[in-house]
Amino acid sequence: MAKNLTTRGEDYSKWYNELVIKADLAENSGVRGCMVIKPYGFAIWERMQAELDRMFKETGHQNAYFPLFIPKSYFSKEASHVDGFAKECAVVTHYRLKNDENGNGIVVDPDAKLEEELIVRPTSETIIWDTYRKWIQSYRDLPLLINQWANVVRWEMRTRLFLRTAEFLWQEGHTAHATKGEAIAEAEQMMNVYADFVENYMAVPVVKGLKTESERFAGALETYCIEALMQDGKALQAGTSHFLGQNFAKAFDVKFADKEGKLDHVWATSWGVSTRLMGALIMTHSDDNGLVLPPNLAPDQVVIVPIYRNDEQLEAVSEVATSLMAELRARGIRVKFDNRDTHKPGWKFNEYELKGVPVRIAIGPKDVENGTVEVARRDTLTKQLLAKGDAVGFVSDLMQEIQDNLYKKAVDHRTENTTVVSSYDEFKKVLETKGGFIAAHWDGTTATEDQVKKETKATIRCIPLDDDNEPGNCMVTGKPSKRKVLFAKAY
Amino acid sequence: MAKNLTTRGEDYSKWYNELVIKADLAENSGVRGCMVIKPYGFAIWERMQAELDRMFKETGHQNAYFPLFIPKSYFSKEASHVDGFAKECAVVTHYRLKNDENGNGIVVDPDAKLEEELIVRPTSETIIWDTYRKWIQSYRDLPLLINQWANVVRWEMRTRLFLRTAEFLWQEGHTAHATKGEAIAEAEQMMNVYADFVENYMAVPVVKGLKTESERFAGALETYCIEALMQDGKALQAGTSHFLGQNFAKAFDVKFADKEGKLDHVWATSWGVSTRLMGALIMTHSDDNGLVLPPNLAPDQVVIVPIYRNDEQLEAVSEVATSLMAELRARGIRVKFDNRDTHKPGWKFNEYELKGVPVRIAIGPKDVENGTVEVARRDTLTKQLLAKGDAVGFVSDLMQEIQDNLYKKAVDHRTENTTVVSSYDEFKKVLETKGGFIAAHWDGTTATEDQVKKETKATIRCIPLDDDNEPGNCMVTGKPSKRKVLFAKAY
Repeated sequence: MAKNLTTRGEDYSKWYNELVIKADLAENSGVRGCMVIKPYGFAIWERMQAELDRMFKETGHQNAYFPLFIPKSYFSKEASHVDGFAKECAVVTHYRLKNDENGNGIVVDPDAKLEEELIVRPTSETIIWDTYRKWIQSYRDLPLLINQWANVVRWEMRTRLFLRTAEFLWQEGHTAHATKGEAIAEAEQMMNVYADFVENYMAVPVVKGLKTESERFAGALETYCIEALMQDGKALQAGTSHFLGQNFAKAFDVKFADKEGKLDHVWATSWGVSTRLMGALIMTHSDDNGLVLPPNLAPDQVVIVPIYRNDEQLEAVSEVATSLMAELRARGIRVKFDNRDTHKPGWKFNEYELKGVPVRIAIGPKDVENGTVEVARRDTLTKQLLAKGDAVGFVSDLMQEIQDNLYKKAVDHRTENTTVVSSYDEFKKVLETKGGFIAAHWDGTTATEDQVKKETKATIRCIPLDDDNEPGNCMVTGKPSKRKVLFAKAY
Repeated sequence: MAKNLTTRGEDYSKWYNELVIKADLAENSGVRGCMVIKPYGFAIWERMQAELDRMFKETGHQNAYFPLFIPKSYFSKEASHVDGFAKECAVVTHYRLKNDENGNGIVVDPDAKLEEELIVRPTSETIIWDTYRKWIQSYRDLPLLINQWANVVRWEMRTRLFLRTAEFLWQEGHTAHATKGEAIAEAEQMMNVYADFVENYMAVPVVKGLKTESERFAGALETYCIEALMQDGKALQAGTSHFLGQNFAKAFDVKFADKEGKLDHVWATSWGVSTRLMGALIMTHSDDNGLVLPPNLAPDQVVIVPIYRNDEQLEAVSEVATSLMAELRARGIRVKFDNRDTHKPGWKFNEYELKGVPVRIAIGPKDVENGTVEVARRDTLTKQLLAKGDAVGFVSDLMQEIQDNLYKKAVDHRTENTTVVSSYDEFKKVLETKGGFIAAHWDGTTATEDQVKKETKATIRCIPLDDDNEPGNCMVTGKPSKRKVLFAKAY
């Protein structure tokens, strides 16, 4: 491994941290818990954003922008919401700095204290519902289907790049509906949109389900989620969609007149995915050689590396490379021709392997002579020599093949690492030796859920929606259980 | 005026405020100085972003993301920078709220005080240059061409929607170069990119120029700018591009080794445009009937409104409308067919006039009979009856025609409102009676600039780059002047 990358077997967590840095995805900043998303990492996030944004718009949503700051008093209006977020938020208390009179440099000006403190948004329900009160009067104003791309801040104590950072980027959908049924349908629809995106673009299989009461979003009546399984057997929550009932409408007094003129509070949803998806993407596909990217999200899907010893050779190779690039681009493939003379081919091979570019094409003087090119796949680390005339069709087909292969590998890994258990002893044993998703019966009480969490660190990831709903007995208490739920240790 | 919109003649400022609200572009939020950008306003901003982002990428820039927060100590490192921003910044001092023990509700937890206060970024030079120190070692790492789309906060005391808000959205480019010449060329290039965008997409003519020393960005050696003239004769700074010299590289110790291994500080630029552009767009083209949008930025370029009295008529009209919409879309035109039965045609006509949709097509039962459609232009408020077969070509051509017409009108307005004066008396008279850009000789001193500002409220908008550079004598002091500069009252 020329990359000096810790292997997954040695230390999965260390491997992840090193990979994020070495593949130029992100790094820690001088601000505690806040990351810098580097250009290569950001280019992947931009592709995610573009696809999600398209899907949101196709389902009738519009983007808008609401303030970064939330007055403290707004928070207190929805009781469970403030409980959920008050302990980890950044508070703005002053609006000016000044030169210290005693020569201590720049200090906060005590005369510039805000009358009411402002919270840097950890999520925007409160400021948005305060606004919706002005926007919604009648059934004609509904449904209101709005999304926001934004940065949010949650003062996490232990942070990890992409997975848990004090500031992160996300989108948050906030919708208002005339009926309970419509709001539930919206929450389910957005869970399905997320699942579609994560499976078909990120090539990460997910389980759709409901959160238990104790794992629900602060202020939600029901939280839908998609859960993915990482290579180390830990689960990662990839997205959530909340049915908020009339909680926020009541807290912020948002009512609408129906066709008969009768007033009622509106029904709400909110839903979000964040830069955390980058963590899921990295941990699902990457290997000991570095990042592995699915073609649907790779900023560069193909890189062409020229092999040459002199200018004459470079010219001949470049001619082949340029025409190949043009043909691939004509098929909508994102191709980069790396003809920098500041780096050797070996360095470039290594670099693109580390950065997960799905396909590498190498062309040398012999290839020019023989009319061949060498095509290497990042996912399988295999390479083969092709007639130049066959390369375009082959590489074109490879895009879908690699996408499918990555998804299949991830599904197989999840299948192998999903275990059905019938006793708590078996549960503990599987959790210790194998990890992964564990399906087990649970009596439906928070007490039992807490006990399992305390004793094993595993949590209920979700109550799967596609379960067979076979009743049984709780593995811990033996009490009746309506269906199995999915446990795992989680990120 | 069914819109109850104050006219520009009555009160330009009031007209602007009402228009922004009534056209559903933005509104004030519950947070002092922070706006909510509503879906329609945001859709225009998204189009601006998309075009600018494409232009940045075409000129070799990549996007990245840096932290929202800047440690207070970073600010102090570049002396003039902290002077420029310290007086208007939001300061985070705590990271937790708690329930007050005395029953006063939610309060800031005094135990959760940050060791070092964090400033919500008013601009990101300091946090970015602290990062660049790690990214730049050698000439191979240069140029570093990075852009960030972000929210920033400047604690302005008097705010106006889009024009001056405590939080606003913008992009900020931050580049690093090996030579002074390259950095200056980059700063000039980005001024030209901005001018290209503002003139060709926003249809707003601009003057390119340099800021005087006192109007420069805090920390810049030279500030390039583009200045536009609004309908009321006041100028608006639409974008700035700064040559930062080695100031930030020195403050943050960013050095690179050249090909010979010699160490030197790198050369820098930064450049930005913001949601302020929305204000320029609105104030350049709109009229007493509402918003007027250039087709290149209009979320809907064409709206089709059906006229009908019964379902049968609606069906016949819809058939024509749907086929017309398909043909227009095939030509890449953004068309909306508003067949909502909750609103009357007259209401819709009014609505789309207020929202500035460039072309409105009305189709009624008589049109179906006669094979005609009625096409109305928002910019000229004229309408004409066309054979349905001619409509697609006509409307297609109208897109460019309206774009050109808006630009031409704005250029004519600016020409009429640009006056060359030779004496300070004449200057004051023109400023009082006519306003607009006033070109006059200036002795190049800050003292004279300050005097004019104090006595007339006009500032030097820029030293135009395309000036004839004819020398003369300062209108105030009579001292020698190398060239005329452009004065105006400004937003």
